[in-house]
Amino acid sequence: MKPAPLLIVGSMAFDDLDLPSGSSRDVVGGAATYSAYAATQFCPVRMVAVVGEDFPNETLEELSGRGADVSGVERAQGKTFRWWGRYADNLASRTTLDTQLNVFADFKPKLPASYQDSSYVFLGNIHPALQLEVLSQVKAPKFVAADTMNFWIEGERRLLGNVLEKVDMLVINDEELRQLAGVHNLRRAAKVVRDLGPKSLVVKRGEYGALLFDAQGTFFVPAFPLEDEIDPTGAGDTFAGALVGTLAQAGDTGRAVLHHALHNAATVASFCVEDVGTRRLRSLNAADIKRRKEELRRLVQPSD
Amino acid sequence: MKPAPLLIVGSMAFDDLDLPSGSSRDVVGGAATYSAYAATQFCPVRMVAVVGEDFPNETLEELSGRGADVSGVERAQGKTFRWWGRYADNLASRTTLDTQLNVFADFKPKLPASYQDSSYVFLGNIHPALQLEVLSQVKAPKFVAADTMNFWIEGERRLLGNVLEKVDMLVINDEELRQLAGVHNLRRAAKVVRDLGPKSLVVKRGEYGALLFDAQGTFFVPAFPLEDEIDPTGAGDTFAGALVGTLAQAGDTGRAVLHHALHNAATVASFCVEDVGTRRLRSLNAADIKRRKEELRRLVQPSD
Repeated sequence: MKPAPLLIVGSMAFDDLDLPSGSSRDVVGGAATYSAYAATQFCPVRMVAVVGEDFPNETLEELSGRGADVSGVERAQGKTFRWWGRYADNLASRTTLDTQLNVFADFKPKLPASYQDSSYVFLGNIHPALQLEVLSQVKAPKFVAADTMNFWIEGERRLLGNVLEKVDMLVINDEELRQLAGVHNLRRAAKVVRDLGPKSLVVKRGEYGALLFDAQGTFFVPAFPLEDEIDPTGAGDTFAGALVGTLAQAGDTGRAVLHHALHNAATVASFCVEDVGTRRLRSLNAADIKRRKEELRRLVQPSD
Repeated sequence: MKPAPLLIVGSMAFDDLDLPSGSSRDVVGGAATYSAYAATQFCPVRMVAVVGEDFPNETLEELSGRGADVSGVERAQGKTFRWWGRYADNLASRTTLDTQLNVFADFKPKLPASYQDSSYVFLGNIHPALQLEVLSQVKAPKFVAADTMNFWIEGERRLLGNVLEKVDMLVINDEELRQLAGVHNLRRAAKVVRDLGPKSLVVKRGEYGALLFDAQGTFFVPAFPLEDEIDPTGAGDTFAGALVGTLAQAGDTGRAVLHHALHNAATVASFCVEDVGTRRLRSLNAADIKRRKEELRRLVQPSD
């Protein structure tokens, strides 16, 4: 079967990264960028985003060469969205030093006509009103996944609730889950959030792995234990991109595919962390993924 | 094959526990106690410890009834070792409010003659000098596992080094591993510590699971995601007791047994957390363990 295209909406950005291994400036990033680099390993992608006049054409061309349709990436007057973050020595926490919305402040996502028949959709972490706006322009989505963050959980609870009613899968991290549910225990929090709409919930726990909660129960995929952790920026977006990209590739969201997709997600996300920005993702090939994915499976497979 | 007896040395104690669910005083605890309750699910146990005049005979009788030889538990004049701890609301951290060594201060472990042929040994977290003293009294140990803690890593590095040269397996938590190795990355830290002696290293990560590092590579067992987390006290000792107890039961420390043992360890430790002190461990039966262990395996087993 031909892989279905995956529609991805989210930020494209410049990141200034202060990492234990050194500082990097003007690193091309953004949730949609990471998700697209990951998803194009598995399926065609249709990107919806906005960039400024300063965003490199080379990135759009490279993404296009990997099978991403970038006709939905609007180039607006002004500067690209920018984030500056500083990581702790152990990479376990980070501080935002600066955020400049720039062209993102006035982003009104408008889907090219050719995107409107998309069956797989990933709503990256942007304002829930924009997520709804994108979704309203897709005629008959088969599977919709969404990400969100503390900022919208705090400030846009009602609109976020509208998003949750419309999505099949929510992909968030453990602290966001706890905040959204108002419950610390993950199992209980998962119940609360699944009652808000999403049939399945994927909880990202960074270096500890990820949990899937759905009607069939709970499934866990560990993070691949890395020897060289350089830059976790975008690892969560990479995880989500590979996850939903695998579902689009299979044209199926059944349990077996979902497990397979979670292993792909953990695998591709682990590569993301091994270099600054999207660098490792860009050089990644199918054989790299296959090899590490097998290693990841062996990690939890008892030898008996 | 008849299970081999497992020699366990460690603390027996009274714990005062300030938990989010309420406070409990004079709770029977201590590393050796938790490890023994866990290990007796799998093999006979030989306990080496010291208690004061105030320690309940009922606990020793109960342990004895479960297959623990308590002839190596010395009853000394004075009070039993005591620990007072307060847990954070999310149970993720705890503060020690008081420690009273009491009879533990002058503990000189002396093995009954009948213990000296022990082939499986678990050196619970006590002063490395005492761990060495116990080990010197065992004639021909086949497999020795040890635990330790930040206090000895900081203050008794040389003696701890002597212990590490003599043990087959070290079972510690991730922060202790990082401290011992002086390296944050777990994979790198594991290499450093395995070079100090232990052929295998088990790294406990609490609610996130545990990693095994050995000559064959890396293996991961998740923690069982609980709905009711009440009291994590002793969960690590429970984990270690079930782990080494399973090896003694099998009389084998090969890779397949080790994986099986780690699943038992994660399973039994999860029960420990579901009630205060050893309460749940004491009512636990083989069917409970089997059921949850199967659930734990399904948690990481992709359905394909």
